[in-house]
Amino acid sequence: MHITALAGGVGGARFVRGLRHHLDTTPGLEDTTVTVVANTGDDITLFGLRVCPDVDTLLYTLGGGVHDGQGWGRADESHRVQGELAAYGVQPQWFALGDLDIATHVARSQWLGQGATLSEVTTRLAARWGLPEQRLELLPMTDTPVETHVVVDDGEGGERAIHFQEWWVRHQASLPARRFVVAGLDRAAAAPGVLEAVRRADVVLLPPSNPVVSIGIILGVPGVRDALRGTSAPVVGVSPLISGRPVRGHADACLEAIGVPATAGAVAGLYEDFLDGWLVDPADAATTLRRGRVEVFDGPLLMSDVPATARIAEHALRIASSVPA
Amino acid sequence: MHITALAGGVGGARFVRGLRHHLDTTPGLEDTTVTVVANTGDDITLFGLRVCPDVDTLLYTLGGGVHDGQGWGRADESHRVQGELAAYGVQPQWFALGDLDIATHVARSQWLGQGATLSEVTTRLAARWGLPEQRLELLPMTDTPVETHVVVDDGEGGERAIHFQEWWVRHQASLPARRFVVAGLDRAAAAPGVLEAVRRADVVLLPPSNPVVSIGIILGVPGVRDALRGTSAPVVGVSPLISGRPVRGHADACLEAIGVPATAGAVAGLYEDFLDGWLVDPADAATTLRRGRVEVFDGPLLMSDVPATARIAEHALRIASSVPA
Repeated sequence: MHITALAGGVGGARFVRGLRHHLDTTPGLEDTTVTVVANTGDDITLFGLRVCPDVDTLLYTLGGGVHDGQGWGRADESHRVQGELAAYGVQPQWFALGDLDIATHVARSQWLGQGATLSEVTTRLAARWGLPEQRLELLPMTDTPVETHVVVDDGEGGERAIHFQEWWVRHQASLPARRFVVAGLDRAAAAPGVLEAVRRADVVLLPPSNPVVSIGIILGVPGVRDALRGTSAPVVGVSPLISGRPVRGHADACLEAIGVPATAGAVAGLYEDFLDGWLVDPADAATTLRRGRVEVFDGPLLMSDVPATARIAEHALRIASSVPA
Repeated sequence: MHITALAGGVGGARFVRGLRHHLDTTPGLEDTTVTVVANTGDDITLFGLRVCPDVDTLLYTLGGGVHDGQGWGRADESHRVQGELAAYGVQPQWFALGDLDIATHVARSQWLGQGATLSEVTTRLAARWGLPEQRLELLPMTDTPVETHVVVDDGEGGERAIHFQEWWVRHQASLPARRFVVAGLDRAAAAPGVLEAVRRADVVLLPPSNPVVSIGIILGVPGVRDALRGTSAPVVGVSPLISGRPVRGHADACLEAIGVPATAGAVAGLYEDFLDGWLVDPADAATTLRRGRVEVFDGPLLMSDVPATARIAEHALRIASSVPA
């Protein structure tokens, strides 16, 4: 069996880790391969280094190197390089880059500078984190540099665009977003293997990633949405909301920016042209109605630890085997 | 008074630190300004980062951040980034880059990438190390990227060129060098202020830096040698040899490569077209004869600590005031 998942950072990475745990501990499913298509709209160049936050969170989480309490970055991290950069007056300082993490960006930037594609770089980084041995393939959604920008009020009656990371990390999504603009996305091509991974999968999963700035961005890569509509695999999504609120992150602020209510049902509406099954938390079950052809199921969605997350993934796979694709 | 010194890494940096100490502790000399022209032939791009070993050793030594026992790199250094780079399989691993040190290279590389010249970058780095407050100006010899390569036997009867750092650091100068080739030096222009600093100085000093791959490279920058010949300032050099051997580094191997005996007198011969005074260790006094117009003096040259080094600098300045320029 082959599973393809579209993922953002923390939520997507934790879900896939739980999925892998479920597959590895279920007789007959160990050989299942998983392709993860990662959002790269969050990517940013800081200090001349190319940083891919979602790819890195996936690498660290799936490779066992993540700072678990934080959900991103490396365990046992230090910040000596950034302290020195601050002493040199290098800006910005609002994005925390740990020493171990910086090595990833240095390696990536060097390889990109030597002409490797982001896909090739990601494959090399994944090797160090043991993803192939886990039957995990990690693909960036595109090799084209794309960057999500957030249009906010400029305080003088007009508007200005800031990088997604500045809005998300520096301002904690507290500046009302008018809209998101993904620079380069219209001219981007899906990375090698991405469309095939969707078309040839036995199951496609949407982890509980941000529906606007993670999965929504991946869906904007030319060809991805068509591949989802056309795949013969069942497509099952896991709601990123519990009681209408994101467990972490700022999905509610993102949904508000695009004029979509922060409800599990409204999120399903963003996917209804290709979604077959939609798993919501029991807290949202009563208010989430079947939407077009999307069947709704409910089960606890709090990813409190790996086994709990594995049960959510198991539930999603059960749904996949029950819905008509 | 204004002093200009041409310097390589450890020896040059320690000498200038001693010089500054002498000036700062001598009534009437506190206001003396010092311009240091640094060798950049050692520069190398590692992991996509631009590393300027001599400039950095000067910054760290003069700014109080150097690892004193080692003579280069930062005190209280760690190597977490490089450990990760090794885990990613990034080469080379023979050049030790500490975490604090890497921040310097990241800052420099970012600024260079934004279009700043190496001079401008060096000025920014020097500000963080408090050089202006010490009346110290640090100039790279050129803003043109130049790189010293070492031609060695290829083991099959032919020859090959390797980067100076690979020869110096990886092979500890143990591969017999046939010659040195400085890529880009013929087309390099002296950095802004370099030629003026030589021409307008009241005293020009040659610290006990490597005469071949440090001072020799600076002398190869178009215009520098002419400026030294033409300056009205006395030019006084301090021998890098004691008893015909370098106190540290591999000056003897470098001299051998260019067919010059490792003696204080032979080194003076490399400078005799512009040198006015030559300070050698008492151990070399008997064998170092006046060479053309170069007057020879002797005094202890072991830079065992800052006060001892200050006394060497003081001696060099006394010589400068006694020789005809």
